[in-house]
Amino acid sequence: MQYPEPIAKLIDSYMKLPGIGGKTATRLAFYTIDMNGDDVTEFAKSLIAAKRDLHFCSICGNITEDDPCVICKDKSRDQSTVLVVEEAKDVMAMEKIKEYNGLYHVLHGVLSPIDGKGPEDINIASLLKRLQQNEAIKEVIIATNATPEGEATAMYISRLVKPAGIKVTRLAHGLSVGSDIQYADEMTLFKAVEGRQEM
Amino acid sequence: MQYPEPIAKLIDSYMKLPGIGGKTATRLAFYTIDMNGDDVTEFAKSLIAAKRDLHFCSICGNITEDDPCVICKDKSRDQSTVLVVEEAKDVMAMEKIKEYNGLYHVLHGVLSPIDGKGPEDINIASLLKRLQQNEAIKEVIIATNATPEGEATAMYISRLVKPAGIKVTRLAHGLSVGSDIQYADEMTLFKAVEGRQEM
Repeated sequence: MQYPEPIAKLIDSYMKLPGIGGKTATRLAFYTIDMNGDDVTEFAKSLIAAKRDLHFCSICGNITEDDPCVICKDKSRDQSTVLVVEEAKDVMAMEKIKEYNGLYHVLHGVLSPIDGKGPEDINIASLLKRLQQNEAIKEVIIATNATPEGEATAMYISRLVKPAGIKVTRLAHGLSVGSDIQYADEMTLFKAVEGRQEM
Repeated sequence: MQYPEPIAKLIDSYMKLPGIGGKTATRLAFYTIDMNGDDVTEFAKSLIAAKRDLHFCSICGNITEDDPCVICKDKSRDQSTVLVVEEAKDVMAMEKIKEYNGLYHVLHGVLSPIDGKGPEDINIASLLKRLQQNEAIKEVIIATNATPEGEATAMYISRLVKPAGIKVTRLAHGLSVGSDIQYADEMTLFKAVEGRQEM
């Protein structure tokens, strides 16, 4: 006996999500049937709305309902710095700390020759164009992840941007706050020593 | 800065699912935005359809599109045995082994005084009514889970059904196939010895 068709289809849909296999999808599908009807309708509407109403900002590539996005439109923000991140999620993470008040640029990926991702596959051209057209930008902060691909992408962008006389910086690498030195990996410890600062 | 509203709503919806917290919900929501549009539409439709088209079978309580369900309607199945399970999922698990060919009864829960769940909160009354009205039923196999609540529920049903002269059996407890005796818990080992069978 197979599952009734509506539940089989729902299981298939859940299985398309990352990190959700057959067993979890089945659990979620049965849970959905027991959910409040309004919540399920709301869920379905949110899915459609998220796909329909969200776009990438034509200036910075961030996810937004309106184009340009609220950050690009906000003239009270520091127009002289652009922080470059891999994903739109990273913008949200940066905004949460309420420390950075400049602009952003979302690459939507990193250079990764193994996956066949070259400079033309990520938002680098639009960054360069933006820097050329907007003379107010004085500093580019590269905040790609601390992975080999993130490092390579940072290096690549740095080489393209520096000759234009724009300052290029990279987020600091070092020990996480609250972490134990004995458990830090060698590369992190090496970077922490290298980047030590005077007290 | 907050997430754009469509994505915030989608994150909220994902967070209503069991075992999905804020971080996973955010990851799923951003993943959804990158998904194929057709897949997202299909997902939304499946949610609505599962909630709208699935009902509980009026005879056995299993989840079904049609009432009565395919199992209750199938006259080729053994009409003399009823296997009692906690959830509709358990019916699917039993059907997968293709060994059991009788009927089912889904309790939709177990007796659990701690959670305030008494006999009137689960499908016991309908089971008793079914046994009274249908004289063809000769055996009730109780397949509630091997938890204290499952055991108590099995005992409770057994006491109600036995006086009517219907045979009541319980699924065997013992070692899982492929398991090591040294790692079995004491209760399982005890049950395995108690239920030993002649070779």
